[in-house]
Amino acid sequence: MSEYFNEIKKIKYEGPTSKNALSFKFYDPEKIVLGKTMKEQLPFGMAWWHALCNSGSDIFGAATADKTFGAAPGTMDHARAKVDVGFEFMEKLGIDYFCFHDADLVPEASDIKETNRRLDEITDYILEKMKITGIKCMWGTANLTNNPRYMNGAASSNSADVYCFVAAQVKKVLDLTVKLGGKGYVFWGGREGYETLLNTDIKFEQDNIANLMRMAVEYGRKIGFTGDFYIEPKPKEPMKHQYDYDAATAIGFLKQYGLDKDFKLNIESNHATLAGHSFQHDLRISAINGMLGSIDANQGDLFLGWDTDHFSSNVYDTTMCMYEIIKAGGLTGGLNFDAKNRRPSYTKEDMFYGFILAMDAFALGLIKAAKMIEDGRIDSFIQERYQSYGSGIGAEITSKKATLESLSAYAENLGAPALPGSGSQEMLESIINTILFS
Amino acid sequence: MSEYFNEIKKIKYEGPTSKNALSFKFYDPEKIVLGKTMKEQLPFGMAWWHALCNSGSDIFGAATADKTFGAAPGTMDHARAKVDVGFEFMEKLGIDYFCFHDADLVPEASDIKETNRRLDEITDYILEKMKITGIKCMWGTANLTNNPRYMNGAASSNSADVYCFVAAQVKKVLDLTVKLGGKGYVFWGGREGYETLLNTDIKFEQDNIANLMRMAVEYGRKIGFTGDFYIEPKPKEPMKHQYDYDAATAIGFLKQYGLDKDFKLNIESNHATLAGHSFQHDLRISAINGMLGSIDANQGDLFLGWDTDHFSSNVYDTTMCMYEIIKAGGLTGGLNFDAKNRRPSYTKEDMFYGFILAMDAFALGLIKAAKMIEDGRIDSFIQERYQSYGSGIGAEITSKKATLESLSAYAENLGAPALPGSGSQEMLESIINTILFS
Amino acid sequence: MSEYFNEIKKIKYEGPTSKNALSFKFYDPEKIVLGKTMKEQLPFGMAWWHALCNSGSDIFGAATADKTFGAAPGTMDHARAKVDVGFEFMEKLGIDYFCFHDADLVPEASDIKETNRRLDEITDYILEKMKITGIKCMWGTANLTNNPRYMNGAASSNSADVYCFVAAQVKKVLDLTVKLGGKGYVFWGGREGYETLLNTDIKFEQDNIANLMRMAVEYGRKIGFTGDFYIEPKPKEPMKHQYDYDAATAIGFLKQYGLDKDFKLNIESNHATLAGHSFQHDLRISAINGMLGSIDANQGDLFLGWDTDHFSSNVYDTTMCMYEIIKAGGLTGGLNFDAKNRRPSYTKEDMFYGFILAMDAFALGLIKAAKMIEDGRIDSFIQERYQSYGSGIGAEITSKKATLESLSAYAENLGAPALPGSGSQEMLESIINTILFS
Amino acid sequence: MSEYFNEIKKIKYEGPTSKNALSFKFYDPEKIVLGKTMKEQLPFGMAWWHALCNSGSDIFGAATADKTFGAAPGTMDHARAKVDVGFEFMEKLGIDYFCFHDADLVPEASDIKETNRRLDEITDYILEKMKITGIKCMWGTANLTNNPRYMNGAASSNSADVYCFVAAQVKKVLDLTVKLGGKGYVFWGGREGYETLLNTDIKFEQDNIANLMRMAVEYGRKIGFTGDFYIEPKPKEPMKHQYDYDAATAIGFLKQYGLDKDFKLNIESNHATLAGHSFQHDLRISAINGMLGSIDANQGDLFLGWDTDHFSSNVYDTTMCMYEIIKAGGLTGGLNFDAKNRRPSYTKEDMFYGFILAMDAFALGLIKAAKMIEDGRIDSFIQERYQSYGSGIGAEITSKKATLESLSAYAENLGAPALPGSGSQEMLESIINTILFS
Repeated sequence: MSEYFNEIKKIKYEGPTSKNALSFKFYDPEKIVLGKTMKEQLPFGMAWWHALCNSGSDIFGAATADKTFGAAPGTMDHARAKVDVGFEFMEKLGIDYFCFHDADLVPEASDIKETNRRLDEITDYILEKMKITGIKCMWGTANLTNNPRYMNGAASSNSADVYCFVAAQVKKVLDLTVKLGGKGYVFWGGREGYETLLNTDIKFEQDNIANLMRMAVEYGRKIGFTGDFYIEPKPKEPMKHQYDYDAATAIGFLKQYGLDKDFKLNIESNHATLAGHSFQHDLRISAINGMLGSIDANQGDLFLGWDTDHFSSNVYDTTMCMYEIIKAGGLTGGLNFDAKNRRPSYTKEDMFYGFILAMDAFALGLIKAAKMIEDGRIDSFIQERYQSYGSGIGAEITSKKATLESLSAYAENLGAPALPGSGSQEMLESIINTILFS
Repeated sequence: MSEYFNEIKKIKYEGPTSKNALSFKFYDPEKIVLGKTMKEQLPFGMAWWHALCNSGSDIFGAATADKTFGAAPGTMDHARAKVDVGFEFMEKLGIDYFCFHDADLVPEASDIKETNRRLDEITDYILEKMKITGIKCMWGTANLTNNPRYMNGAASSNSADVYCFVAAQVKKVLDLTVKLGGKGYVFWGGREGYETLLNTDIKFEQDNIANLMRMAVEYGRKIGFTGDFYIEPKPKEPMKHQYDYDAATAIGFLKQYGLDKDFKLNIESNHATLAGHSFQHDLRISAINGMLGSIDANQGDLFLGWDTDHFSSNVYDTTMCMYEIIKAGGLTGGLNFDAKNRRPSYTKEDMFYGFILAMDAFALGLIKAAKMIEDGRIDSFIQERYQSYGSGIGAEITSKKATLESLSAYAENLGAPALPGSGSQEMLESIINTILFS
Repeated sequence: MSEYFNEIKKIKYEGPTSKNALSFKFYDPEKIVLGKTMKEQLPFGMAWWHALCNSGSDIFGAATADKTFGAAPGTMDHARAKVDVGFEFMEKLGIDYFCFHDADLVPEASDIKETNRRLDEITDYILEKMKITGIKCMWGTANLTNNPRYMNGAASSNSADVYCFVAAQVKKVLDLTVKLGGKGYVFWGGREGYETLLNTDIKFEQDNIANLMRMAVEYGRKIGFTGDFYIEPKPKEPMKHQYDYDAATAIGFLKQYGLDKDFKLNIESNHATLAGHSFQHDLRISAINGMLGSIDANQGDLFLGWDTDHFSSNVYDTTMCMYEIIKAGGLTGGLNFDAKNRRPSYTKEDMFYGFILAMDAFALGLIKAAKMIEDGRIDSFIQERYQSYGSGIGAEITSKKATLESLSAYAENLGAPALPGSGSQEMLESIINTILFS
Repeated sequence: MSEYFNEIKKIKYEGPTSKNALSFKFYDPEKIVLGKTMKEQLPFGMAWWHALCNSGSDIFGAATADKTFGAAPGTMDHARAKVDVGFEFMEKLGIDYFCFHDADLVPEASDIKETNRRLDEITDYILEKMKITGIKCMWGTANLTNNPRYMNGAASSNSADVYCFVAAQVKKVLDLTVKLGGKGYVFWGGREGYETLLNTDIKFEQDNIANLMRMAVEYGRKIGFTGDFYIEPKPKEPMKHQYDYDAATAIGFLKQYGLDKDFKLNIESNHATLAGHSFQHDLRISAINGMLGSIDANQGDLFLGWDTDHFSSNVYDTTMCMYEIIKAGGLTGGLNFDAKNRRPSYTKEDMFYGFILAMDAFALGLIKAAKMIEDGRIDSFIQERYQSYGSGIGAEITSKKATLESLSAYAENLGAPALPGSGSQEMLESIINTILFS
């Protein structure tokens, strides 16, 4: 197979003074940050669907980008061409991982057995490429949103027959994930929710979803899958309301159904913001519950009410993201670029510009987060802030020796408490700006 | 004491043809709906704070309504005047319950012992009034948001001394709630959240909050409180982010800390909508978890991003609310009007207009919900929708006999599933409109 | 040609007690309301694109509804089948008008001359149908969003060549609109806005858009088009920011460029709500500027941040819509159902259910708006509210005789003004509920 | 009078390596940027209301910060203390301008003559301070929102008597603004809008507002006011809907009533974002209409639906703001910090931290905007992007020689247009990040 991006060479680190748009300004893979190389700290992944399948169509317009790669769409030739181009693209960017849906890899046949045969064939080819390049599989997932049979939900469908197709797809993608050595398996329940409560039994649907997840864990462990299962929360779109609304909701669901030992969360920035939370918030909620597993790295537009999947560019956000990841001790998955070019960015170069933008933004995030930690002022402030719980009445509270009566008596004796110290938000924000811009 | 609303007589049901603004058009207390009187089906409550304390000030403007009731604010005379006026108001409207914060009842003294003495005095007076009128206490709560000492949170404060004052207030209000025979005790954590993650340890704060709730349960049960504790979720305001974001989040929190046996939820419509959910959604989530306890009845303005606490007027919403309540088997609390007049509605008559609007809106909601249930088309549609799980492969799924392998084999044999039946949302919405408008 | 909806008969008014889902419960075409038949008061239109072309695909899923109508998509056979089915559909519903884009009617050819030839052919066929059925054209418009050439805007494109194609399409659709006797011509600038200010010259783009509109007016008037041109405001989607953000912005634009004599607005409910306004607000703003021309009748979901184009079901909204229309003296266009079935509502019956829902909702809106006007309490309240401007100092203000000095002197003499009367919002909302639900 | 901030010295530039929280890290007043000193490029202003009057109360809580400055609130002593503290504060920060409402300066008396006398007295005192310090008045405005008489609007009030009080206040503040040499006079119509359309005649109210503005211009010009009048748009809060919704709406209003020669806009970041626009958007809309006059410098929280008035910290936003200002040729007003500390930031130091944060953020914004301009890549990209309009068919379009017919003929000959060039958004965003972070 010939080179597809034949006019684009491997993207190199050239530093911020370079005017070469096809170079990294901040991402320097071998540079050591906090004791590891950037490459290790930033396990980037390419999302098969956006990078190799998305051609810029939107609900009001046709495709702008050509993703045929010289083959006829809907054929196994095209499937192979995507493999070729995808690996060339990852190599040129220095990306070590990819993520996939079944539907990204091959055209779906009318018969599931034929679809599965195609999946076997293409994954053989992918395995070959993986061996040659050293590129690895971050995670796999089944596309349970596109096919019309899932119009009323996948595991939440009102049709038991449809539910069986869900099971069949999940089983197959688990097989493939193991075959490709994937680190994780993701559930994004794009149709697991409702359009109207007038026709929906939420409890019944949630039980069915949990049931499927339980079966997936059982099957996965049986076939030797040792990685994490992930839920990727999203509040809505395409459905009016999706059950895995946000991190807190998904964690509650996992605990309620006893799935929290096998599952972690895959947090997407744009999904968090659609749910009314900052990216950092949903990362923190996941982390303090021991469930921060992987990240769909992108960013939304807070003025727009749908999932825009912009390539990450906001360094405030990437810094806080990397700060949370470092504090949590890292990810079991990685940073998957679930991001797409804007529709008018339709050229081959644009494909690279998007990744360069985001890889540089996360590199800056890593550098700045490391600086925050080394600087220490933010962490110290927080530590000192709660020190009144370290001894005396505070320690009685945290050690659960206190009662309402004992605390009330203490308060009565105190007369009136001193005001707690200032929150100093503006001072802390100045520290952040100083760290970011110097 | 003399009559305050001396030109306003007891509000009576006069039916929809009446042009008397000071009459009910739909709320007919003794009318039987679904086997009970409207009065029983609709346990309305007056919120002390809005009805008797709120005078229309907002962040950009001073009070418009006179709530001095002939006494000097900040005195026990004023506290008693509020009791007098409140009971007159409830009697004239036929409201059977009230809800209160400690801070609504008496002016806070600089010494907590003196504040508690005042609370004892005023609740003696309230008890007298309750005996005379038959009006009851729905629930009590401690105001843990207003005092500057709570600027960094109440049970989530970084100051252990402040935490003791929280405990002292909660203890006292539990005492008072028992004294007044209240059916419930509410936690609304208006300051339990954060302004910025730069200075916040969420995990530590949440542990402390749960700790306080545990102590409250222990103390409450010890002093003979047999009612429900309630969490009232709200996503934000005044804080940037409040921990009890929505029903799902609060339920997850309660289960995580083992508080779910003693707690239920008090769902406020406007809080649900600020969190991105319909009122009905948060009612349903509560109900399917067995946690629908009580309701703060109001409505928000979906074009405004803050808690507007409008008196409920939207009959679509009150209908779906009453439908959920009936389906859940009723409330352990009631329908508390956590609602206030718009700022330019500042007269004595306006106080009545607000309640009349909302009581009529919930009466219509009850009538229409009963009609929905008696009509049966909505319920039948839902029941039939999931029937494929009643036997065959569906029953194997719900009985947990199925595995990914067995379901996958079934799917392979099926070839392709039939599309599930239409969701028929538009047809169902037509049924709702026909029920509402005929 | 054979009947397509062969199991569905003409939809008749059967009243609210009918359980026949394929009947009108409230829309009784010949019933007289405010001196005219409902049919006259409610000039409904079918949108070619949603009714005949939309098959339920969304950004995450494939088509669920079959809109091939027995012909191969992309052929003139299919174009003709859509005409046949569309007219059958309109006749069975009693819809008198249709609206169209060029791209809805025929498949676009690679050569614009061939596309235009196809348009000539299909409109000949449509004309025949119009003569037979008496159905009329409400308005036409050019699809300037779908083709990739418009990715950077249509009249706001940075490419002058692309601009010429815009001109060519607008010219052709003006020709067709005149040919079909259309009452109006609509501009919806779906791509007339920006994705990022980093690459955009707003002023230049707005000048170009206005320039095109001016040419369209000149050409239209030259070929005998006597109807209204309309702008249809929308704030965003697909673009990050669309220039015709809302009614106020579009009116400002039209006046700035001297286009306000030939243009009115086509207000879409869901577009207004996406801009942060109620439907009624944008209708009122249009009406008080003499620019309320036509309506894209649908409704959004205020919990969702994109254009959902639900069929209208909310009778509060349809009532206020009809109230504004009646007060404004009617529309020059009509009520075009720019609405689509939810994706899981994919059957032939669902096509009818959507229209029945919305036609009944607007029929109720008309009935209730008429009742509001006949009742008179709302209108009287407003009239009396401003009466202080009818004489004395008030009349000096409105007649522009007053100066700051004269008014200031008056104020100084007054001492302090009486508070203005209560806004009485809750009382007015009770009147509305009484009118709606009795 | 003694020093109030006696432990805080004049804030100096110490550069980003300084750990002194009471120093500037980036704002170096005498440093030359684009040919002028930073001090000249950044005409900062202190808002009397936030800095000297706001004490941290919110709708759910009492004041946290002590702004009595050793005097009894509601007295002229307190009014003078605010002057003393305000000038000390401005001097220590190196702020050259202040902005004020009448109500910020003195306590309002029940008699307007007495209020005006107090205003005369305090402005005498302020004038003295101005002479000593060289500090100047940026603009004045009348507080037309707080007093209950304005509950139904100020110039939009339904009471003609109330309107006269508006006129009296505006007249007086114009007098004072001239007396203090203010550069501008601002209208922020916080109550100029509606709570419900059920009681509102928008047209009548808008006419009255415009009428007042006309009188203000006539009076101002008569007494020698040569500065700009400004409208400050805001979409809502406290009202449900405010007439000056955003820049485009306010500009349309000014042009409609012939006020656009005397008025410009005062754009507030947080108001723009509440209206659904980026700060940069409303700056650009103002600029291309020749109406960018002054700025209320702050930032909102896009996850919160009310006006939070954070001190600006986001350097992306300050950079784009300064870029627009420089491109527009500067402001006629300045950068007024309409910003307040977060409620838990209640100390004297916090007052300084807030200003330091924002002054540094705008200093960075200036430095980075200058770098953008000197770098040239963004500007060149835009310029080249539209070059097809520079000659040939493009020039015929912009020179208005073209017609639909001529352009259509051109298109027909062209066959199909080449796709316009890529929008390259991701590449441009990389350039911005490189400029910001190197």
